[in-house]
Amino acid sequence: QPGDRLLGGLLSPGFDDGSCLSRYGSFSYRRPSPNNPSAYLISRLRNYESLHKRCGPNSKPYKEALEALRSGSAVGYGECKYVVWISFSGLGNRILTLTSSFLYALLTNRVLLIDQGKDMMDLFCEPFPDESWLLSKDFPVTDQFDSLGQSSPNCHGHLLKNNMINSTEKRMPSYLYLHLAHDYNDHDKMFFCDEDQKVMEKVPWLIIKSDNYFIPSLFLMPSFEQELFNLFPHKEAIFHHLGRYLFHPSNHVWGLITRYFDSYLARADERIGIQIRTLDGGDGPLSYVMDQIIACTQNEEILPKVDQHGTVSSSPSEDTRLKAVLVTSLNLGYSDNLKNLYWMYPTVTGEVVGVYQASHEGYQQTEKPLHNLKAWAEMYLLSLSDVLVTSSWSTFGYVAQGLGGLKPWILVKPENRTTPNPPCGRAMSMEPCFHAPPFYDCKAKRGIDTGVVVPHVRHCEDMSWGLKVVGDDHQDL
Amino acid sequence: QPGDRLLGGLLSPGFDDGSCLSRYGSFSYRRPSPNNPSAYLISRLRNYESLHKRCGPNSKPYKEALEALRSGSAVGYGECKYVVWISFSGLGNRILTLTSSFLYALLTNRVLLIDQGKDMMDLFCEPFPDESWLLSKDFPVTDQFDSLGQSSPNCHGHLLKNNMINSTEKRMPSYLYLHLAHDYNDHDKMFFCDEDQKVMEKVPWLIIKSDNYFIPSLFLMPSFEQELFNLFPHKEAIFHHLGRYLFHPSNHVWGLITRYFDSYLARADERIGIQIRTLDGGDGPLSYVMDQIIACTQNEEILPKVDQHGTVSSSPSEDTRLKAVLVTSLNLGYSDNLKNLYWMYPTVTGEVVGVYQASHEGYQQTEKPLHNLKAWAEMYLLSLSDVLVTSSWSTFGYVAQGLGGLKPWILVKPENRTTPNPPCGRAMSMEPCFHAPPFYDCKAKRGIDTGVVVPHVRHCEDMSWGLKVVGDDHQDL
Ligand SMILES: Nc1nc2c(ncn2[C@@H]2O[C@H](COP(=O)(O)OP(=O)(O)O)[C@@H](O)[C@H]2O)c(=O)[nH]1
Ligand SMILES: Nc1nc2c(ncn2[C@@H]2O[C@H](COP(=O)(O)OP(=O)(O)O)[C@@H](O)[C@H]2O)c(=O)[nH]1
Repeated sequence: QPGDRLLGGLLSPGFDDGSCLSRYGSFSYRRPSPNNPSAYLISRLRNYESLHKRCGPNSKPYKEALEALRSGSAVGYGECKYVVWISFSGLGNRILTLTSSFLYALLTNRVLLIDQGKDMMDLFCEPFPDESWLLSKDFPVTDQFDSLGQSSPNCHGHLLKNNMINSTEKRMPSYLYLHLAHDYNDHDKMFFCDEDQKVMEKVPWLIIKSDNYFIPSLFLMPSFEQELFNLFPHKEAIFHHLGRYLFHPSNHVWGLITRYFDSYLARADERIGIQIRTLDGGDGPLSYVMDQIIACTQNEEILPKVDQHGTVSSSPSEDTRLKAVLVTSLNLGYSDNLKNLYWMYPTVTGEVVGVYQASHEGYQQTEKPLHNLKAWAEMYLLSLSDVLVTSSWSTFGYVAQGLGGLKPWILVKPENRTTPNPPCGRAMSMEPCFHAPPFYDCKAKRGIDTGVVVPHVRHCEDMSWGLKVVGDDHQDL
Repeated sequence: QPGDRLLGGLLSPGFDDGSCLSRYGSFSYRRPSPNNPSAYLISRLRNYESLHKRCGPNSKPYKEALEALRSGSAVGYGECKYVVWISFSGLGNRILTLTSSFLYALLTNRVLLIDQGKDMMDLFCEPFPDESWLLSKDFPVTDQFDSLGQSSPNCHGHLLKNNMINSTEKRMPSYLYLHLAHDYNDHDKMFFCDEDQKVMEKVPWLIIKSDNYFIPSLFLMPSFEQELFNLFPHKEAIFHHLGRYLFHPSNHVWGLITRYFDSYLARADERIGIQIRTLDGGDGPLSYVMDQIIACTQNEEILPKVDQHGTVSSSPSEDTRLKAVLVTSLNLGYSDNLKNLYWMYPTVTGEVVGVYQASHEGYQQTEKPLHNLKAWAEMYLLSLSDVLVTSSWSTFGYVAQGLGGLKPWILVKPENRTTPNPPCGRAMSMEPCFHAPPFYDCKAKRGIDTGVVVPHVRHCEDMSWGLKVVGDDHQDL
């Protein structure tokens, strides 16, 4: 079905295949999506693609906007405005902030361009036909990306704090730096107020540094709300659609994904992904986490129980059902223990369980290029699961669940190094959690609990102060 | 086919299934044997089983023979004579010496009984119907098994050396200890002379301690030669038949074997076993051994070459051919490297390669019961391969090749810590190598090269001074 190949119309058909085999090849590895993109989203994406082509890094408007940037003034920037995304933080975080920045660009009719950082080009294909999304090498602010922070002169929050910007201002700067990282302050958070958005409209360049999936708070802004409903009538599949639209593994990563899948996972009857990300220190597998994994997967009947007194399975047969478990973790111990468990004992169901782990990198080594290729391959492989178990607080897991269209079982974050009870709970939606949302009512100008304002934006399962978008079927849970 | 279930008539049909699921279950995991047991072998095995029943540890003759043993004199021992096998050395060695002892018992019309050592009962089922092969707990010499050696009073070599035994002797001892371990001396080696065999005929109890597969030298003894030809007309499948006859994994081990096979190997299109046993010291994977494994498997087209410059395989397809490689090694490094190689790069053939390792025990820990269960499971799993690569000098590998009926590719023993060239060669036969054969002509009473006396007993591929039996098709190589 050609419709599948384009993921229900999400993808433009106009790309050349060979340069990015994953783009039109992914559908043959994925389960069908639980949720089709709306016709409106599709038409907005096609329109965005035209805009991107018209305003992209090789266009005249881009050159004009660069001129304005160099001049320091918003005056005379031409017909296009931009969102520039700075490559920042771990790969899971980057994928989520890039998605957030893209949606923000879509909502504000801006063009998204990205800082290619160390490895963005090694990891991802170009998402838009005809024109690159990579910022040109001569972009004048590039060498300040690392140092941009809350006290940078063009930082939106900084300008606000010092009353140097407001909607009546005549001379707007040519760019604003939007500090949307976890440590942002109340001034930076004014980004989420319609009034401030009005000011920004006049600025051709918005440069974003973030490590947060900030889409849930966009849903709370009256200026965006209706458009978001039109784009995402089912609400919860925002990252599911935009992520599959934007992030196509490079051929290098696609090789890692397909080879691993074909070698270890393809022939199983059911695929289970378990993403283990421990934030408590300590070497080796943590026993309370190991216990938690086993308790969760066995209580929730994700994996069969074993018969500790049995030796051979009671009903051996030619067509034994095979479950393949893909574990991702920096540490090898969890999968090793699980593998041993299902080697040493028969299951009570007679199923057999194969346990796999692609890499065990020991610790986060974001600077090593192969490290992130593997991380991306593993997030993607997890997303090909039929059932997914993730760790609390991890964007790595959010990416997997979102791309896969899966509501994972989330391992409850352990407190005091003990196994939580219950060990895990089912996610309400496949959406990622916004870890550091603002708690502010822009109209009333006072603090509020933004997790109880509308039924489709709620506190996250894994982080009580986080916000996530939930689908219609979960809004009155 | 019920014939398959009994391995071409090798097995007696008279066992109860449940107590030993591997016995009649193995045929469904194995490829068909390249070589059928002869009708004569089958009839001799059935006869042996009757003898074993008649003389076994619960019989009257056994009690009489025990009486004689206690009295110290061969006089009045009843109608049965015995070979007692002492559990000694690594598991591969034990399997080979037990097979040698059994064949020797068969040739001399004796009954084989075994010292159950630490774990023989945990590892193996009873091989003979109706009567156990385990020595009774009250066997008077058991507590001397460990200390029996070349200077023990009843040691055959010791008695010879001191002229305390010969064929005209009237008062024969009730037992002889036969020291057939690698450090045995010229007197001990007289075991392989017909004249000495004549003497032993009068002794009811022969107690053997060995770490060698001594069958090749039995072929050089005129008194046994014809019988051996009748039993094994194709010669080379001696261990293949006797091993499959004697060694049935216990239910515990069978669980390990079948679960591992069903989880990781069953669905592959081809199974390749690689047994890595390094005798040079040093932690971690040895780079010259790693290079050797890759050179051997790729030169001999056992595994496909990879395209170091490729990223995605050229012809991805639904029905990609899958090769499963089972690596056994005390060290995890070799399989880890191999797994990574086939993850990182596409193969030039478009095949995909999954790499598996069941255990990585670090070092030999013969005393740990689970250690040997795993070792036995892994030898057996290797034997289920379609193609086998083994390490030089290792009885662990010999067991796998023999049970599987496979002529392995043998990795040449590295010298000076460098990769040998060629890295491996094909074995002439599936038979194990006798590592410490005698070089003596019993008639001429002088040293000779026993590897050139007859065409079917030749020096081994992996050990120039070893001896092995080769089949008719290889005798004039
Ligand atoms: N290959 C691999 N890398 C991991 C894994 N877990 C964490 N990492 C590394 O650590 C980084 C974690 O950052 P991020 O992806 O933002 O996820 P988060 O920190 O869990 O939210 C990843 O990008 C990887 O570089 C894993 O299971 N596999
Ligand atoms: N599980 C496991 N054990 C091994 C392996 N290689 C060696 N061992 C252990 O080391 C012992 C080696 O002794 P043996 O079986 O007689 O083989 P050999 O020394 O290679 O002739 C085995 O019995 C195991 O206990 C391996 O690949 N897997």
